[in-house]
Amino acid sequence: MAMLEKNFRSDNVAPVAPEIMAALVETNRGTDASYGADHTTERARQAFAALFETELWMQPAATGTAANALCLSVIAPPFGAIYCSATAHISDSECGAGEFFTGGAKIVQLPAKHGKIDPAALEQALATAGKGQQHKVQPAALSITEANERGVVYSVNEVRKLAAIAKAHGLKVHMDGTRFANAIAALGCSPADLTWRAGVDILSFGATKNGAMGAEAVIVFRRELAAELGFRARRAGQVFSKMRYVSTQLEAMLRDGLWLRLAGQANRMGARLAAGLAGVPGVTLLDPAEINEIFCIMPQGLIESLKEDGFGLADRGGGQVRFVTAFTMQPADIDFLIAAAQAHAKRLGLKPQPALVKA
Amino acid sequence: MAMLEKNFRSDNVAPVAPEIMAALVETNRGTDASYGADHTTERARQAFAALFETELWMQPAATGTAANALCLSVIAPPFGAIYCSATAHISDSECGAGEFFTGGAKIVQLPAKHGKIDPAALEQALATAGKGQQHKVQPAALSITEANERGVVYSVNEVRKLAAIAKAHGLKVHMDGTRFANAIAALGCSPADLTWRAGVDILSFGATKNGAMGAEAVIVFRRELAAELGFRARRAGQVFSKMRYVSTQLEAMLRDGLWLRLAGQANRMGARLAAGLAGVPGVTLLDPAEINEIFCIMPQGLIESLKEDGFGLADRGGGQVRFVTAFTMQPADIDFLIAAAQAHAKRLGLKPQPALVKA
Amino acid sequence: MAMLEKNFRSDNVAPVAPEIMAALVETNRGTDASYGADHTTERARQAFAALFETELWMQPAATGTAANALCLSVIAPPFGAIYCSATAHISDSECGAGEFFTGGAKIVQLPAKHGKIDPAALEQALATAGKGQQHKVQPAALSITEANERGVVYSVNEVRKLAAIAKAHGLKVHMDGTRFANAIAALGCSPADLTWRAGVDILSFGATKNGAMGAEAVIVFRRELAAELGFRARRAGQVFSKMRYVSTQLEAMLRDGLWLRLAGQANRMGARLAAGLAGVPGVTLLDPAEINEIFCIMPQGLIESLKEDGFGLADRGGGQVRFVTAFTMQPADIDFLIAAAQAHAKRLGLKPQPALVKA
Amino acid sequence: MAMLEKNFRSDNVAPVAPEIMAALVETNRGTDASYGADHTTERARQAFAALFETELWMQPAATGTAANALCLSVIAPPFGAIYCSATAHISDSECGAGEFFTGGAKIVQLPAKHGKIDPAALEQALATAGKGQQHKVQPAALSITEANERGVVYSVNEVRKLAAIAKAHGLKVHMDGTRFANAIAALGCSPADLTWRAGVDILSFGATKNGAMGAEAVIVFRRELAAELGFRARRAGQVFSKMRYVSTQLEAMLRDGLWLRLAGQANRMGARLAAGLAGVPGVTLLDPAEINEIFCIMPQGLIESLKEDGFGLADRGGGQVRFVTAFTMQPADIDFLIAAAQAHAKRLGLKPQPALVKA
Repeated sequence: MAMLEKNFRSDNVAPVAPEIMAALVETNRGTDASYGADHTTERARQAFAALFETELWMQPAATGTAANALCLSVIAPPFGAIYCSATAHISDSECGAGEFFTGGAKIVQLPAKHGKIDPAALEQALATAGKGQQHKVQPAALSITEANERGVVYSVNEVRKLAAIAKAHGLKVHMDGTRFANAIAALGCSPADLTWRAGVDILSFGATKNGAMGAEAVIVFRRELAAELGFRARRAGQVFSKMRYVSTQLEAMLRDGLWLRLAGQANRMGARLAAGLAGVPGVTLLDPAEINEIFCIMPQGLIESLKEDGFGLADRGGGQVRFVTAFTMQPADIDFLIAAAQAHAKRLGLKPQPALVKA
Repeated sequence: MAMLEKNFRSDNVAPVAPEIMAALVETNRGTDASYGADHTTERARQAFAALFETELWMQPAATGTAANALCLSVIAPPFGAIYCSATAHISDSECGAGEFFTGGAKIVQLPAKHGKIDPAALEQALATAGKGQQHKVQPAALSITEANERGVVYSVNEVRKLAAIAKAHGLKVHMDGTRFANAIAALGCSPADLTWRAGVDILSFGATKNGAMGAEAVIVFRRELAAELGFRARRAGQVFSKMRYVSTQLEAMLRDGLWLRLAGQANRMGARLAAGLAGVPGVTLLDPAEINEIFCIMPQGLIESLKEDGFGLADRGGGQVRFVTAFTMQPADIDFLIAAAQAHAKRLGLKPQPALVKA
Repeated sequence: MAMLEKNFRSDNVAPVAPEIMAALVETNRGTDASYGADHTTERARQAFAALFETELWMQPAATGTAANALCLSVIAPPFGAIYCSATAHISDSECGAGEFFTGGAKIVQLPAKHGKIDPAALEQALATAGKGQQHKVQPAALSITEANERGVVYSVNEVRKLAAIAKAHGLKVHMDGTRFANAIAALGCSPADLTWRAGVDILSFGATKNGAMGAEAVIVFRRELAAELGFRARRAGQVFSKMRYVSTQLEAMLRDGLWLRLAGQANRMGARLAAGLAGVPGVTLLDPAEINEIFCIMPQGLIESLKEDGFGLADRGGGQVRFVTAFTMQPADIDFLIAAAQAHAKRLGLKPQPALVKA
Repeated sequence: MAMLEKNFRSDNVAPVAPEIMAALVETNRGTDASYGADHTTERARQAFAALFETELWMQPAATGTAANALCLSVIAPPFGAIYCSATAHISDSECGAGEFFTGGAKIVQLPAKHGKIDPAALEQALATAGKGQQHKVQPAALSITEANERGVVYSVNEVRKLAAIAKAHGLKVHMDGTRFANAIAALGCSPADLTWRAGVDILSFGATKNGAMGAEAVIVFRRELAAELGFRARRAGQVFSKMRYVSTQLEAMLRDGLWLRLAGQANRMGARLAAGLAGVPGVTLLDPAEINEIFCIMPQGLIESLKEDGFGLADRGGGQVRFVTAFTMQPADIDFLIAAAQAHAKRLGLKPQPALVKA
């Protein structure tokens, strides 16, 4: 019998999906052109075009941060402002990559509820940004994380609405899709509807957290943005000499819907975990559980007990905890964690709490 | 019987060594910490420390360009000058990555013979650089490529001499070791002797061209340079969430001398190819053949004939051709190319040429 | 009789003080060395050293923005975070100069009351900044504007307290002294006490708004920060070939206390204006009036009436207005504005309001 | 009797022309809008449009380096290559300003004779630049210095020819006109013919070396390049709050041909100096004397003797010396220097040399 998986710290602690490993082994035959001129990269590009039902340009990248920063670098000038949620990864967790790749643009956080940008806050920010005033950085781009950093998903209409505001002010729209697969799996909509048809100009498509080894893709929906992307990627050390090994991961992800099967499994385990945690005395969910990330608040004693049991979790301080489920997890893994939490709650004499914090 | 390998275009068209693939498969078990806090990365770091017989810091990177540019970013300020050979990859073939990562330092090419920096030219450049004059970018670093871009290797003494000049002027010394394994295999010296003991402060250690999938390492020999490296790497999108899959390639490379076995095989095939080409009428080697890169000049008719045969080569224009051998090649691959070249030379009525161009 | 001055839009609409013009004319004799090696620049440097009672380095700059951005560039790395007030000019009104000069550092706004940084907010921000975590930009500097962007002055103790917090976390401390003269005139303390003795490492000393033509000075109190300042200034196009004409403005400012006479006059006119406005029905001051900038809220009808009269003011929208007094103004100028406002208020039937908004 | 002027070190050691000082004094009345919205700046802009017989945008800048770097920043992307002469100030003497303002573009030196770019060398560089290849920085701009760093002037036809090559390859053309006035005075052509009619897109128009206090102008001949110039200037700390004092210098320069009178006088003194030096035994001119800069080679003993006499000159080492004449100089100043040189040459027993070095 396999060991139960106890590491809920992040989806990037998980291993690589067997289908991806198989693709890597399969690709490892003979020679092929380097720096992206290979056959695998071309096939992956075509697979993305088919998936998104449109002409597009696809540029592989090493990490989600690189994909995001490359996207920003082609839609915002050095004197530009990039608007995002107050919880956005590009603002908070990428050590200033966006500032670096753009040559010093300003990333402006907007108030958000459950990680979602408030359209009124975006309108307000743009109205007072001082467009055309030389003292002010100039509004250039909107970045939407889908699914977002609180594990919450924008609906197609919500993306449309934000993008429409952005477009009305001349901004380009970026989508940070590190967990795009989880969002599509949750929404059940078409990738095209959630992106270019809704107004998204450029997308960071994540595969690593969804079971790849190390593969992200910049998807460019507007031809004119692609022109300088290759040079910026090359200059950023993001053009792999043996690119076929990155591209094959992407191609394998898209083949036969693997990306949605993996994300769907992670999401289902997320839902199961959220339902279970909501029933543990002393635990309150901080955000709706829509994908594979569960944010909750719980007494420090419970947190410590789970850590002592060997469970991996992200302790954010102040009783805030993040659990992430991965495609590798099965119901038994979730249930084992919940059972442990229930036992500790009982021992600690914790009392029932509201299931979800009112925002 | 296996097909003969006809692709001599570059060593990065080659596949991944079986030992590296095996390491990747082996690593793909269970979960481990992300962003470099994993066990594999720690073991790889220790393996490098053992190899170089000193305390050091090791930071994995996605590509050789990224490794080089990260190195430069911690040894040269934005107002700095970085000296290198006229044929240096950092100056000519990385789309300005060094300028990008340093915030705009100037990369200064020095005259070189067979790709080697002339110590007198370095002395001269430093003497007239205007140190302390505010109009002038300030001498900050020397970058030595080992083995270099013409397939030629600096001896330990040559590295020592250049580094000593640099140190006397207060410069830091970087070694671009994209083909460091080939250099060590050629020289037979210890990695420590060719680097920190000779005055090298920071090294880009290449593995990708030598049979890895995509793995380079920044090796820092001076503790004070390591402090900001992690932040610069993170900000450059070079810190992999599943870093263990990069680190395992590095660890496997160092295990049981694999890196030298692979590079040694590539070098031997390079030598065989050079010897063969030197005997083909109409062909003249441009540089001594010391590793796995062979540069020669030949009539355009011969070049075209080889291309028509399906041989991969790098046609640099003006009759200049580069052939690169890889660890995958065997004597039969080399001999097949030489036989084809001989036959074409005969058919074309080519006449014998000097074996090596006089510099 | 001279015309009354009706332009309260900013202190930089004012002309150059006669003493400064005289100094420029006086300097305009014969030749002198260029790029700052001249006698005038050396004398100005010594005058600053005397004023601040310490060894220091002084580098002239063209504009306040240049002075600020140069300061930030030597105290924060590209991956650094610079903390400032939510109303800070460096964050809001310099088109990203700080990001540009630092190579992409992040400028982080802290909550402020009357433009003053709340020490507790600074503590909180530093405690949660993720020092040492590679995902996070690293706390590097604190920037205090003195007097600040709301026309309010930090006491020496307040500067000391903020600087002590910064120092405890390893940050360097910058003071944006665009209106430093107004602050010293208001506080009556010594320049040394308000700066280096309180923990300030580097100061932008403003002269332009105080009656110079175009002259700011970067004052460096820590020798090790001066080393790269000259190169950064040169590279930023801030080293004037005829620097003596900038330096003579600075020297003249410091001679015989001119800087404090000019700032004192502007401050007195500011106080007179604030007192007058507080007595106008419908007008409420938004901040204590401590220097020469008066922020208030008033009905739009009153704003428009004053504009129609030809008064210059900064209409910030939503009824918020800024008036700035300059060294050129006399009581009659102030009284004329107040009389006009009183007349309009009466005509518009405005009602008395609290003199100062409760924060 | 006025003292003779003995300082030939540079034209920027000279004082400000009386007409410029008068304009500054004249401008110093009342208030006017700040940051370039003033009446003087608008008039200066119109004066430039009249001078160049075309619509244009004019942006004042603090220094020649700032003007150059701003120009480059709007015509070259961070991954661009900027071609210039091997003696170009932007490459050699601005501490990397071009790299800084462009975000890391590469400045590529081309072989030059008497400081003039060889058209064939430009063709050759562009033919082998690797346009479209992602490993290579992409050809973006040509920068021509007029008059150049060797005191030599391109003819209108020479500018046309270089610009035509640049345009054929899609490059933008910058002219570094630090001594543009000297060039026009020497050529006697119209400013329009030497710039936009010849293919120049953007010009750094220098006034400081020609008698201004500190005033340069970026002249933009292509409307689409002007859009982001203001933001880049603001962000670089180059937008003066009291801009009228810069603009009035520019306006005064253009009024009644002052700029050409001043440059003409400097040029005539240059010609007189060159003729005189050519007749001094032991002295050889290195470049044709076309403006106010004279480069020559002479025995070190002669150099030292002139220094001991108190003459200012730029000793470039190896016997190379630069003398620069300014608008302030009169024939007696020149003759005094020549007489001194003749006397030293006689005393030192120097022998006649060719008047001009063969290139």
